[in-house]
Amino acid sequence: MTNTAREFGIVCGIMPTGEKNAITDVPGVRVGHHTLRSGDINTGVTAIIPHSGNIYRRKVLAASDVINGFGKSTGLVQINELGTLETPIVLSNTFAVGTCANALICEAIAHNPDIGRQTATVNPVVGECNDGPLNDIQAMAVTEEHVRLALGSAGHGMEQGNVGAGTGMSCFGFKGGIGTSSRKMELNGTEHHLGVLVLSNFGRAGDLMLPDGRRPHPKAKQQAEKGSVIIVLATDIPMEHRQLQRVSRRCGAGLARLGAFWGHGSGDITIGFSTGVTFDHDEPADFVAMQALNENRIDDLFRAATEATQEAVLNSLCAAEAMTGRSGHKRLSLADWLRQAGN
Amino acid sequence: MTNTAREFGIVCGIMPTGEKNAITDVPGVRVGHHTLRSGDINTGVTAIIPHSGNIYRRKVLAASDVINGFGKSTGLVQINELGTLETPIVLSNTFAVGTCANALICEAIAHNPDIGRQTATVNPVVGECNDGPLNDIQAMAVTEEHVRLALGSAGHGMEQGNVGAGTGMSCFGFKGGIGTSSRKMELNGTEHHLGVLVLSNFGRAGDLMLPDGRRPHPKAKQQAEKGSVIIVLATDIPMEHRQLQRVSRRCGAGLARLGAFWGHGSGDITIGFSTGVTFDHDEPADFVAMQALNENRIDDLFRAATEATQEAVLNSLCAAEAMTGRSGHKRLSLADWLRQAGN
Amino acid sequence: MTNTAREFGIVCGIMPTGEKNAITDVPGVRVGHHTLRSGDINTGVTAIIPHSGNIYRRKVLAASDVINGFGKSTGLVQINELGTLETPIVLSNTFAVGTCANALICEAIAHNPDIGRQTATVNPVVGECNDGPLNDIQAMAVTEEHVRLALGSAGHGMEQGNVGAGTGMSCFGFKGGIGTSSRKMELNGTEHHLGVLVLSNFGRAGDLMLPDGRRPHPKAKQQAEKGSVIIVLATDIPMEHRQLQRVSRRCGAGLARLGAFWGHGSGDITIGFSTGVTFDHDEPADFVAMQALNENRIDDLFRAATEATQEAVLNSLCAAEAMTGRSGHKRLSLADWLRQAGN
Amino acid sequence: MTNTAREFGIVCGIMPTGEKNAITDVPGVRVGHHTLRSGDINTGVTAIIPHSGNIYRRKVLAASDVINGFGKSTGLVQINELGTLETPIVLSNTFAVGTCANALICEAIAHNPDIGRQTATVNPVVGECNDGPLNDIQAMAVTEEHVRLALGSAGHGMEQGNVGAGTGMSCFGFKGGIGTSSRKMELNGTEHHLGVLVLSNFGRAGDLMLPDGRRPHPKAKQQAEKGSVIIVLATDIPMEHRQLQRVSRRCGAGLARLGAFWGHGSGDITIGFSTGVTFDHDEPADFVAMQALNENRIDDLFRAATEATQEAVLNSLCAAEAMTGRSGHKRLSLADWLRQAGN
Repeated sequence: MTNTAREFGIVCGIMPTGEKNAITDVPGVRVGHHTLRSGDINTGVTAIIPHSGNIYRRKVLAASDVINGFGKSTGLVQINELGTLETPIVLSNTFAVGTCANALICEAIAHNPDIGRQTATVNPVVGECNDGPLNDIQAMAVTEEHVRLALGSAGHGMEQGNVGAGTGMSCFGFKGGIGTSSRKMELNGTEHHLGVLVLSNFGRAGDLMLPDGRRPHPKAKQQAEKGSVIIVLATDIPMEHRQLQRVSRRCGAGLARLGAFWGHGSGDITIGFSTGVTFDHDEPADFVAMQALNENRIDDLFRAATEATQEAVLNSLCAAEAMTGRSGHKRLSLADWLRQAGN
Repeated sequence: MTNTAREFGIVCGIMPTGEKNAITDVPGVRVGHHTLRSGDINTGVTAIIPHSGNIYRRKVLAASDVINGFGKSTGLVQINELGTLETPIVLSNTFAVGTCANALICEAIAHNPDIGRQTATVNPVVGECNDGPLNDIQAMAVTEEHVRLALGSAGHGMEQGNVGAGTGMSCFGFKGGIGTSSRKMELNGTEHHLGVLVLSNFGRAGDLMLPDGRRPHPKAKQQAEKGSVIIVLATDIPMEHRQLQRVSRRCGAGLARLGAFWGHGSGDITIGFSTGVTFDHDEPADFVAMQALNENRIDDLFRAATEATQEAVLNSLCAAEAMTGRSGHKRLSLADWLRQAGN
Repeated sequence: MTNTAREFGIVCGIMPTGEKNAITDVPGVRVGHHTLRSGDINTGVTAIIPHSGNIYRRKVLAASDVINGFGKSTGLVQINELGTLETPIVLSNTFAVGTCANALICEAIAHNPDIGRQTATVNPVVGECNDGPLNDIQAMAVTEEHVRLALGSAGHGMEQGNVGAGTGMSCFGFKGGIGTSSRKMELNGTEHHLGVLVLSNFGRAGDLMLPDGRRPHPKAKQQAEKGSVIIVLATDIPMEHRQLQRVSRRCGAGLARLGAFWGHGSGDITIGFSTGVTFDHDEPADFVAMQALNENRIDDLFRAATEATQEAVLNSLCAAEAMTGRSGHKRLSLADWLRQAGN
Repeated sequence: MTNTAREFGIVCGIMPTGEKNAITDVPGVRVGHHTLRSGDINTGVTAIIPHSGNIYRRKVLAASDVINGFGKSTGLVQINELGTLETPIVLSNTFAVGTCANALICEAIAHNPDIGRQTATVNPVVGECNDGPLNDIQAMAVTEEHVRLALGSAGHGMEQGNVGAGTGMSCFGFKGGIGTSSRKMELNGTEHHLGVLVLSNFGRAGDLMLPDGRRPHPKAKQQAEKGSVIIVLATDIPMEHRQLQRVSRRCGAGLARLGAFWGHGSGDITIGFSTGVTFDHDEPADFVAMQALNENRIDDLFRAATEATQEAVLNSLCAAEAMTGRSGHKRLSLADWLRQAGN
């Protein structure tokens, strides 16, 4: 059982969380992990699945925001142009992107044999961070089978910290990894959710700021920020693509509240999707009815994206246990720091 | 009565035009001009009005595309963020942008006294080209009253060539100015239109290519391209903001088919709007129903935008009469070139 | 004499400030203000002048970043395309943009009579915020003469708070206005500076966070964020346009550290320039030698931009005195809040 | 020996070509292909290598332009942020992107064992088109070894048409594939080159326009544009990243002159690089001297990019021989059409 920031009395912002305080508070969204830990190999795969149906046939609205583009994620060009997501989102280490993309293509073909023959191809979406300090990234240890295992294990997604793609990640000099958080709000008389899952691997030792002004320092050697963070934002609120882009951009404000300045060497990228707007791959009609958000309500979503991102990162830090990885490199746990007297 | 490209047998593409072959084929759209010609003053104002109601209260969907940003148009930042147009679009010369913006603000306040007091401010949208070679642009001859006269005269908009903002413009070494064209298509069993109005002031002498391969040359001295072109695209087809951006971008393909390569000194900008999606400034609901276009139908709109832009520029050239302007600078008429034997 | 955040013990970040802790620590940069206070008129003009020479003839490197585009600033399209600034930057209220642009055009022509005749036109750059709550913005009280007065008064720029364009601005429910801050760093054995000047008019009452975790609240009525903030960033560090864009983007992180989430109604825009790279309008050579920054050094600039923006906003809040403006609307002073026992 | 457009009397524009009329006219640039033809497998790999040294250690200036983003190319996010290319550019079919990226990573590690350990990771750049109509793309036939063979065979790059990645491509209803062209110009007293290589797989049957106005039609069944085109632009002209972006964007004008309107289903992407500006991965200095282009000279590069793109596509069409591919699908050759009497 992992720790959360709230168990340490750390709260981000003022909005209420969803029941699980997780991206899976958005109905239908599932998360799966496959973890690799063996010797110098400390890495893995995390998959976020937007709904239980055929995602290629029933695409969801998507958008992205590149906060800092020192990164190798793939699939963003088409998301920006078409505003849709047609595969699960898979996260892993930097050198596993190609293999994860291949696995997503094969999965899509398995369920849609007309892909690349009678219909279009498919756009795999893969995000990555460099877990090199703790993982032997040159080993390229992730296989297509590992992606299938992560997809197959998808569930409520409450595992955080050193799990899946988060296994070997570092954040503000501490052990980072997978974190999640959510916010809820009422719109049109109905409860809606906005959830965030992060793969945290950014921030210099000493720069972390807690909401109460404390500055946890792992006493680690100062290093250039060579990390990255991938933020997956999910919601069931219907809106236009342009609106989802605006909401996705606010995740960067959550990072800044933690003390980050979106460092040069950090590929900071948000991929957002809404299950509230879906597109039929085989749509026969010329026009399609949809719901957009009244733009004057969007500040609540901006606030939710900011708060949930900040808290998801802190959750990743609180859940991650200290680790000794490749070549004896060590990362302390923020949870241990918080438990120490006087901090 | 002005000439059109089709009267010279010049046809762009394969799609049928609307009844007037003008931006005003889009129901509700009106165009007004005010022309200033006196000595070295050869300039004016052109206004495109999206509908007859209160535009601030009932905004229309809008998008823009900057093909080449050597230009001083104003209002695009907010169009990109919010996807709406809340004033008429006014075109004039480069140094009249501030005055036209002021006039649009005053007009909006006159009809909406709560602007800047009980409600938000207003975003005036003004496009410009540099008519310096034929007009004494330093004189800053355009006044707010001229803008009101252009707005007040708005009608079917069939005047082309040396009228309104087009009075002093040059294009491919010939006399340029205002041109318009439209295309029609059936969607969901109903006829829809996409229309374009251009303020043409771009292209080097000798670079113009007609659809049949002819290369009209005004035998003018070769000059660096210091012009610009503003393209206003209107449609009644409902769609998402992202889709309208994609459609607006295709106007640049129409320019390229004429022989332009979007020259360094030319501010080439498209402002697009759709009357098929409107937004209530005082919207009370959290969600708003709208129609999006089935993305698989969008190629017809791409083709229409390309063809109508190409033809609108040729119409501006065919309608514009030869002019001698500031300091005796001359511009020949493409219509005269086309009438000459052997061309 | 106005207060600064540091006089209240508030420090942002870890880098050393320049001597004046102001944008004018960048050698050659000057700032001028003209203030209008009379009855319901509480507004003004602020001008930032990059160097003392002919700016049109000797342009400086420039870039911009639109954090949230609900704004009416002008001149950004050309900055993005050409990467140069060729006029001073003028700040004022939303409805003064056109008049300020006209004044800048006239000033440029006065010093360069070939503009729009033998050479190109000129791109005026004007930033704005809506001071409607405290100023009768409908009165459009700013004239071209006021712009000339602001330009003419340019000097060391140490006035902050209710001065120039900042006269009628509000920020986090308190009185906002003009603020400035700087950071210094050594590069290539020489001291360099990065300075920021803000026109602060953003943030909801209750959202402000101080670096030590305190949350000052003006006990004002909750209002939607309808403000804006314009951030002018100046440096003497030579770099590429792309690098200046990256640096300019980090100003948004400074806003987020204050508790902002870049609200819907707030036009948050950064305009950055470097006096370390200049361009001769009449350049005769085909190639021009320049210095770029080693990209691995850019994190210091990112940190400086973030810290200086955060501190400039706090300086604007600490310097601004409480004001009663249009229709009796009141804004308290953060300085007063900080002086109260227990805060 | 393959045909070129000029052998059929087809000339694009007015600028002189380089000696080979190929991207390899840019000194140091090499091109390699590996072709797979066997039964339903008609695909391959093409590699463009910017210089003969260690590309990771000595990066070249790079930029990209997404004309239409319905595509799965990878590596663009980092090119946009950092403005550098640190691997060869590899082209292949849509489902080979992951495998090509893996191969590029392994190649980079082989020459730089510190990657992902003592230094940063590496950004593989892969462009793709969908050759599904003629190739069994589901077979995912391309292996990492094929990429190494393409890289290893790199030379003068005069093969065009059905070679490497171009093996199974279609264009305007004809057989497409690899094409190349170049332009030369004198700057600062020295001859410089701009070259283009295209992987052509776009355009509807019937839309192709030759420079002389002819409209070749393969009499093939009308199909939606589901192709793509990748344009690689190389030059030895030194410039800023922003300038290279502007130049790269003009390749889209070359496509439009051929009759394309950048169709919905076509991923049209330009990747540009300049060997005239290089970056040392281990740069010790704070500032780096570089040459920028006098912006007033850039129109020649715009024209060169437009003309070379148009001609490279026509060369791909003239060089490609008719093919019968997967499931008996046929593509005629434009060269055959041009040879027919009366065309």
